[in-house]
Amino acid sequence: MKIHEIKTRVRYQETDQMGIVYYGNFFTYFEMGRTEYLRSLGLPYLELEREHIYFPVTETHCRFRSPAHYDDVLVVQTWVSELKHASVEFSHKVIREGSNTLIAEGFSKLACLNAGRKPASMPEKLKKLLE
Amino acid sequence: MKIHEIKTRVRYQETDQMGIVYYGNFFTYFEMGRTEYLRSLGLPYLELEREHIYFPVTETHCRFRSPAHYDDVLVVQTWVSELKHASVEFSHKVIREGSNTLIAEGFSKLACLNAGRKPASMPEKLKKLLE
Amino acid sequence: MKIHEIKTRVRYQETDQMGIVYYGNFFTYFEMGRTEYLRSLGLPYLELEREHIYFPVTETHCRFRSPAHYDDVLVVQTWVSELKHASVEFSHKVIREGSNTLIAEGFSKLACLNAGRKPASMPEKLKKLLE
Amino acid sequence: MKIHEIKTRVRYQETDQMGIVYYGNFFTYFEMGRTEYLRSLGLPYLELEREHIYFPVTETHCRFRSPAHYDDVLVVQTWVSELKHASVEFSHKVIREGSNTLIAEGFSKLACLNAGRKPASMPEKLKKLLE
Repeated sequence: MKIHEIKTRVRYQETDQMGIVYYGNFFTYFEMGRTEYLRSLGLPYLELEREHIYFPVTETHCRFRSPAHYDDVLVVQTWVSELKHASVEFSHKVIREGSNTLIAEGFSKLACLNAGRKPASMPEKLKKLLE
Repeated sequence: MKIHEIKTRVRYQETDQMGIVYYGNFFTYFEMGRTEYLRSLGLPYLELEREHIYFPVTETHCRFRSPAHYDDVLVVQTWVSELKHASVEFSHKVIREGSNTLIAEGFSKLACLNAGRKPASMPEKLKKLLE
Repeated sequence: MKIHEIKTRVRYQETDQMGIVYYGNFFTYFEMGRTEYLRSLGLPYLELEREHIYFPVTETHCRFRSPAHYDDVLVVQTWVSELKHASVEFSHKVIREGSNTLIAEGFSKLACLNAGRKPASMPEKLKKLLE
Repeated sequence: MKIHEIKTRVRYQETDQMGIVYYGNFFTYFEMGRTEYLRSLGLPYLELEREHIYFPVTETHCRFRSPAHYDDVLVVQTWVSELKHASVEFSHKVIREGSNTLIAEGFSKLACLNAGRKPASMPEKLKKLLE
C-alpha cells in the first residue's frame, strides 16, 4: 500500500474564532491529498476531467484528534483504502509537522461518473494505477 | 425528538467547477443547522462562548445522495441524536426545497470544553434544553 | 436609483482567529447582494447562465469600516453604480442590523461574456432592467 | 523595493461553476503573500499576534485580468507599497507560472491594532524591517 504525503501550511482564512482550523476545511486538505496522490501516479485529476470523467465525493468522514492552528505545517497522508469497479475510497491522516501530533483522520469515497454525469466504470488505466 | 429546520440558498461561492456544491461546504450547512437549533431552544451558541464554553467538532460524517446546485434553496433538518455528559451529537438531513430530494445526510459530534479548552461537563441548563 | 437590501447572518465558518469576519468573505456577501438584486428585477442570474451569458468580476474594492462578528445580522445594500454596453458595476454597503453601524462598503465590476467566454453586449432585456 | 514571491496551486475548492477561481479567493492568496513576506523578513505574523499586535485589513482592491483555473500554479508577488506610522499597504501581482500571464493585481491596507484592538503605532522592529 502506497502512502503519499503532502504538506500544507494553515492559512489565516482557514481558522475560525475558536483560534483553530474550522472543521470543514479538513475536507479541502483531503482533496489536496487526493489530487497530489493522483499526480504522483502520473495521472493528474485535471486530465481525467478533460476526458469527461468526474469523481464527486459520495461519502466522507473525519475524526478530529487535536486542533490545528494558524501557520502550522500539516502533513496530509493519503492512501487508497478501497477500490471497486466504479468507486474508490481514499483514507487520510493529518499530522502536525515536527511534533508528530495526529490532528485528524478520515476518508472520502468517490464515485466515477461519465460525461453525462452517470455512474460509470473507472477507466482501466486509472484502476491499474490505483491497485 | 425535536427536528428543527432552516433554509439556506446556495451561493455561487459554494459551487465548484463540477457545477455542484463543493462537498466540504455541507459542514457549514450543518453548523448553521446547529446554531439555529440552539437559538430555537433559547440558548444561542454565542452566549455559550461568552460564558467561555466551547463546542468544537470531534467527529463528522456525511453521505452525499444527490448534488446541490447554485441558487437551490436547501432545507437543513437538525436534531440531537446522542447526548452525553460532556458531548452531544447532532444529525442532519439536507433536502432540496420543492422537490423533496434528499441531498445529503450526516452528523457531527461536539465536545464541551471550558475556558482552558479542557473537556468539561455540559452546563445543566444546556443539557436540560437538549434532552 | 433602486437600492436593494438583503440580510445574512454571519456564520462561524466566516470568522477567523481575530474573532471577526475574514475580509475575503465580504465578497461573498457582495455576490449575494447582486444575486438577489437581479432576482428582484425578475431576472435571476441562474437564468442568464442558462442562456450562456456569464458575468465574471473584473474588479472589486472594499473598505472595512468596523468589524463584523459571529451571529451578527448584516444588511447588504446593493445598487447599480455604473452601466455600460458590456459591463455593469454594483456598489454595496454592509450595515449591522439594529446598531446601524457601517461595516463595509465597496463595489464590483462585472463584464458580460458569451458562451465562448468572449466579451459581449449585455442582453437588451437585462440592460433595460438595470437602467 | 523588495518583491517576494510564493507559489500556490489552485485547489478544486477554490473554483466555482464558471470553471475559474472564485474572485473572493484571491484575497486569501494576498494573505498568503503577506504572511510569507513577513516570514522572509524574519518576523512571522504569528509572532506579532503572540505579542498582541494585530493587522486587520482596512481596504482592499483587485483587478482580475485573466481567469485562473484548477491545478494552475500561481505565483503571488508581494511588496510594500506604502508604509505609515500605524498602517502598511501591501501590493500584489498574481501570475500563472510558465505562461507568465497576469491573472490579477491588487493591494491590501492593514492597520496596526494593540491588545485592546485600538489603533497603535507599529512596533519599531517591524517598521524597520518593512522599510
